[in-house]
Amino acid sequence: MRRLGKSTLEFDRPPSVLSHGAVGGKKEAEGPLGSQFDQTFGDTTLQKDSWEKAEAQLQREAVSIALNKAGLKPEEVDFILAGDLLNQCISSTFGLMDFQIPFLGQYGACSTMAQTLLMASILVESGAAGKALAVTSSHFCSAERQFRLPLEYGGQRSPTAQWTATAAGCVLVGVGGRIKVRKGLAGRVQDLGVTDPANMGAAMAPGAAHSIFQFLEDTHTRPEDYDGIFTGDLGLVGSRLLYQCLDANGVDLRPVHQDCGLLLYHRERQDVHGGGSGCGCSAGVLCGHLLRRMEKGELKNILFCATGALMSPTSQQQGLAIPGICHVVQLTAK
Amino acid sequence: MRRLGKSTLEFDRPPSVLSHGAVGGKKEAEGPLGSQFDQTFGDTTLQKDSWEKAEAQLQREAVSIALNKAGLKPEEVDFILAGDLLNQCISSTFGLMDFQIPFLGQYGACSTMAQTLLMASILVESGAAGKALAVTSSHFCSAERQFRLPLEYGGQRSPTAQWTATAAGCVLVGVGGRIKVRKGLAGRVQDLGVTDPANMGAAMAPGAAHSIFQFLEDTHTRPEDYDGIFTGDLGLVGSRLLYQCLDANGVDLRPVHQDCGLLLYHRERQDVHGGGSGCGCSAGVLCGHLLRRMEKGELKNILFCATGALMSPTSQQQGLAIPGICHVVQLTAK
Repeated sequence: MRRLGKSTLEFDRPPSVLSHGAVGGKKEAEGPLGSQFDQTFGDTTLQKDSWEKAEAQLQREAVSIALNKAGLKPEEVDFILAGDLLNQCISSTFGLMDFQIPFLGQYGACSTMAQTLLMASILVESGAAGKALAVTSSHFCSAERQFRLPLEYGGQRSPTAQWTATAAGCVLVGVGGRIKVRKGLAGRVQDLGVTDPANMGAAMAPGAAHSIFQFLEDTHTRPEDYDGIFTGDLGLVGSRLLYQCLDANGVDLRPVHQDCGLLLYHRERQDVHGGGSGCGCSAGVLCGHLLRRMEKGELKNILFCATGALMSPTSQQQGLAIPGICHVVQLTAK
Repeated sequence: MRRLGKSTLEFDRPPSVLSHGAVGGKKEAEGPLGSQFDQTFGDTTLQKDSWEKAEAQLQREAVSIALNKAGLKPEEVDFILAGDLLNQCISSTFGLMDFQIPFLGQYGACSTMAQTLLMASILVESGAAGKALAVTSSHFCSAERQFRLPLEYGGQRSPTAQWTATAAGCVLVGVGGRIKVRKGLAGRVQDLGVTDPANMGAAMAPGAAHSIFQFLEDTHTRPEDYDGIFTGDLGLVGSRLLYQCLDANGVDLRPVHQDCGLLLYHRERQDVHGGGSGCGCSAGVLCGHLLRRMEKGELKNILFCATGALMSPTSQQQGLAIPGICHVVQLTAK
């Protein structure tokens, strides 16, 4: 592993994606990527008696799918890196403990898929792991009641608000697959003073701009060197702000940029306002859509740039702004 | 890096402790290790207007101390791995963002110090980082109101309850220090059905037993091969259960075992019931006490086995048991 420039890691013997699993809920099934999930659940309770248990089940399903596709048993995997949005990351703990794989809990809010993928790749390249799983999830109903209002309240959503995806994604990282993890960058926390929790895209855009700019600078590349630069989950408002932030630095991302939050749903028809969000949004889009497109040869060289808003209801109530972060992973396919 | 047995990692070019910082509150200053903290605060608000901001300040102070001791600026550090007990780990985010070091949020509950130290060591040995910081914190007042009851309620504590430490610890990992990180093990989540949130030691003991037993088996070592095996934070009840769990496997830990939760306070005189707990407990004991003893040559070969209870108030309210985890790090000094 080598360090490039200020913050980028380059893998010498690139770890690869051995398999991946993506599961989603009803709304995700009805979206433009619905057919690309490995499994979707029309009943988003997943027959569990709480939303939190349903979300834990999403992680369990995504991991099971990834393991099954690779023909592996849990005991053949050396580490599982997982996190989610719920307090104390209980979807991960309760969803994954039955696998009995050494567990390293991660917290990156909605950036968790990129963080776990980066960490799993470092573990594999370093020899610490032969195989490692990276997984995350979110659930609309568990997120609403924790971060906003109970569903029963029927609160009105503001136009900039994003819709937390009911989804989970899992990548099994190892050696010998066709899709390689080439480079990565762990983000620095950026806080430009956005305080509106119904406008997470705005809060996360500076983090995305910072990390993408740094990655391009460290690697001496330009946006057009990539088949796609995929952020998640800036939504409509955050994507526009990302362009503005990067324009100021002479970088035009528009020709190659897409946002996972805008790919997952028919934004207007499905009434998701600013777009999708939640750890499961970028995880589902990566594991259900982007990796499939790479396998088909439609995408050969992409940047996956998951973004997270590192606030809590408590920090909000205490008047603090919403800090954002973005981790970048470069994936290539032959 | 090599894998030993089922789960243990051995470092080929062992990363080392370049410096460390430990800060504590008033009660910690009055405990048996009070003089060993780099700094203690008689006013546990740290002049902040919320307990959460005070806890964030503890992390900031611990990192500043570690950086100052090493004569380093934040920009000379490649990663910071941090986590805490608060929802969405806000002590870490808000406490550390001003350093502008690439940030990887970790969630291991009270096992976080061992997890961040293990991950930082992997990053350094792999070449991903030249230097990495591992840090965590807890604060009695922020933890009480989040996990239990507001302080103003004046609730009675049960005899098995533990006292969340107001403390933070930070280790700077790099190359060339006298104290080396030799081996490590990431734990598997263990859930034996303990449901009492006022008895965390009992909930975490099976995780500690599992990880310590696995480490000893993987490395073909016995407890007496170490100068000390330090768990954190099982307290009085959990330590007894740990002995019982290991007795059943033919391992007697008593001669070399101490628990960070029992080292930090005068248990009876300071009225902490079962002992100390919280991420800051094992972090403070490691960074204030154990590493100092290693520097003085009093300890040459230890296992640091921080334990975490991976529950949330929500999982409790939904009737789930409390899963525990324990990560193990072997440290040696010449």
